[in-house]
Amino acid sequence: MIDETLYQSGTKPSTIFQLFEYGLKQAAVVGRENVYDYSLGNPSVPAPQQVTDAFQRLLGQEDPVSLHGYTPAAGALDVRQSIAADLSARSGMDIRPQNLFLTCGAAPALLYVLRALAVAQAEVIAITPYFPEYRVYAEACGMRFVPTQADLDQFQINLTSLEDCITPHTQAVIVNSPNNPSGAVYSRETLQRLAEVLARKSREIGRPIYIIADEPYRELVYDGADVPFIPGIYPDTVVCYSYSKSLSLPGERLGYFCVPDGAADSSRLYTAACAAARMMGHVCAPALQQRVISACTGIRPQLEVYDRNRRTLYDALTSYGYRCVYPSGAFYLFVEAPGGSARAFSDRAKEHNLLVVPGDDFGCPAFFRLSTCVDSDMVERSLPVFQRLAE
Amino acid sequence: MIDETLYQSGTKPSTIFQLFEYGLKQAAVVGRENVYDYSLGNPSVPAPQQVTDAFQRLLGQEDPVSLHGYTPAAGALDVRQSIAADLSARSGMDIRPQNLFLTCGAAPALLYVLRALAVAQAEVIAITPYFPEYRVYAEACGMRFVPTQADLDQFQINLTSLEDCITPHTQAVIVNSPNNPSGAVYSRETLQRLAEVLARKSREIGRPIYIIADEPYRELVYDGADVPFIPGIYPDTVVCYSYSKSLSLPGERLGYFCVPDGAADSSRLYTAACAAARMMGHVCAPALQQRVISACTGIRPQLEVYDRNRRTLYDALTSYGYRCVYPSGAFYLFVEAPGGSARAFSDRAKEHNLLVVPGDDFGCPAFFRLSTCVDSDMVERSLPVFQRLAE
Repeated sequence: MIDETLYQSGTKPSTIFQLFEYGLKQAAVVGRENVYDYSLGNPSVPAPQQVTDAFQRLLGQEDPVSLHGYTPAAGALDVRQSIAADLSARSGMDIRPQNLFLTCGAAPALLYVLRALAVAQAEVIAITPYFPEYRVYAEACGMRFVPTQADLDQFQINLTSLEDCITPHTQAVIVNSPNNPSGAVYSRETLQRLAEVLARKSREIGRPIYIIADEPYRELVYDGADVPFIPGIYPDTVVCYSYSKSLSLPGERLGYFCVPDGAADSSRLYTAACAAARMMGHVCAPALQQRVISACTGIRPQLEVYDRNRRTLYDALTSYGYRCVYPSGAFYLFVEAPGGSARAFSDRAKEHNLLVVPGDDFGCPAFFRLSTCVDSDMVERSLPVFQRLAE
Repeated sequence: MIDETLYQSGTKPSTIFQLFEYGLKQAAVVGRENVYDYSLGNPSVPAPQQVTDAFQRLLGQEDPVSLHGYTPAAGALDVRQSIAADLSARSGMDIRPQNLFLTCGAAPALLYVLRALAVAQAEVIAITPYFPEYRVYAEACGMRFVPTQADLDQFQINLTSLEDCITPHTQAVIVNSPNNPSGAVYSRETLQRLAEVLARKSREIGRPIYIIADEPYRELVYDGADVPFIPGIYPDTVVCYSYSKSLSLPGERLGYFCVPDGAADSSRLYTAACAAARMMGHVCAPALQQRVISACTGIRPQLEVYDRNRRTLYDALTSYGYRCVYPSGAFYLFVEAPGGSARAFSDRAKEHNLLVVPGDDFGCPAFFRLSTCVDSDMVERSLPVFQRLAE
């Protein structure tokens, strides 16, 4: 007998993946150069040469038994030392290896932290537009998922709406900045005001409301935008991170959660999240990738292509009459759909082999998402289609 | 507020890891050569040269964007094709890529399959001695974990005991052959009799009782022992596998579950297990490792060292009066503790810097486990200690 609810959830197709698959099929019919696929957030810039060099050097020089052997569940100590040193240097805080737990990407990191906070009746708030998996993960942990609308003018946090969502059962707020899909980077001022609200509400309900800072796009910012390290503003913050985007290694599954010493119940939260990891089949993050990351903590992403695509698309689309906030980070544009329904717009675009993701799953059915991690020539070729669709 | 049960489970130390840590500390005091550490099941033989070559070739020749990019959740299609072809050739069955789902090792594979079967009141049977994580995983999925004692003479399945454990809520039996910790390989005859029992009981309760075949040691057998492919004997079998042991890549986290077409509700079970994977943060198995495995499906493990240690230890220990079944597979010996309490024996051994794992967590407190994936010189040096402790 198969779990029916689980089975049903497994049959629901992913909109993004369906679009991507459709694009592959259409490419075979009309030619690859005539399909404009903006569906996937898959880095299009190769991993930095230093990453490949580190892989090669480790494979050439290290003893394979220890190179490919089990590491402790939290990750090899020397790897965590490198990451902690890098994080400390950048944040001005004292992050220790013992605060870090290496995971197979940011997704399980988020899940383990959520699971540690999943007491009876627990609620977790996310700011719309949000990464659709947040809902899946929160509900998988038995938590109530509470979306609250961002200010749609700039996609900054709407603190009044957020405060209205807080109840005595609120355990955490997921903060994703730079944001997928809006590209917004929450300003220091926004975060300070968020910290004030959460500190006050935590006192009111008599226990901490955590921020879970999901930061896979931390280094993907443009025009020198400032991405504040949230634990420095609000101590009760757990950071989840992935090297997928910053080092163009999305398939390699290397990330972490970090529970800084200053967070309330830091050690208990870390321990419970470790136990959650074990319960979900975590043994260790891929050992070779751990060592590569250790050698590459100082490397920053190559942003030129994403930046160029961002500018080209923003300038062109706004000139055609589309409305869109100019993104400061990540590699997406979140555009208001002409006519008000992103799904209808996406369907129309599909007829022209232009693949854009309707914002429904992000909680914003009036917007569509474009990934800027695409070929710049494709962007140029696609502009006439955007223009036609705007008319 | 932290989940208290989870926190408490996180504070329980692992016996094996404590022993291992103790060994490292003692090595610093008495010298590495005077510590006889049999605690960890960490392959001591390096990964085959072809594996390192495959890593190097892929890194040197492939486009890094596609090499390190996301793969489908189930794994890259060409990788699953290679694995399916290898499995089909070896089993004589028709395994398709669509039957396979690549995971970060066997642990999550097991969890996803268990979760798919975790309907209300579900029970899962394991045969004692069993890998301790089975209990953790079953209970994490909300299933009742039902251990049933193996025949302790040969560690084959005791079918009478097993049949007594079956209830209308029995969803699956975990079969781990070659077995950790006993080294037993279940014979074709044992498995055929198991199949008869399960087929009869499935008819009685009106729905299939699955076998979950956990097979990370499938290729680690000695003296030409036959490891039957269980789906060929009992169709309602799901296979979980890892390349950790066979290719000496335990830290690299590459495994799979395989739901053959012949299993009852095959497609529904596969779909539900995929959904479970997503709920537990699976995105894809490490992409580079997927490609390496694809190039190395035909490679068999190097068993000489494990075999030599197995023979040396078995011959010496039985000559000292220890009782032990001669293992046919895996890389362990499971030895009856003189005096009847493995924990007491392990404590006494520790005083001589001999580290053996008491069988309590495997459900057999009268036996201790020795890993044979150790240095053969260490084995020789440790024999006098075993002799002294037997007296």
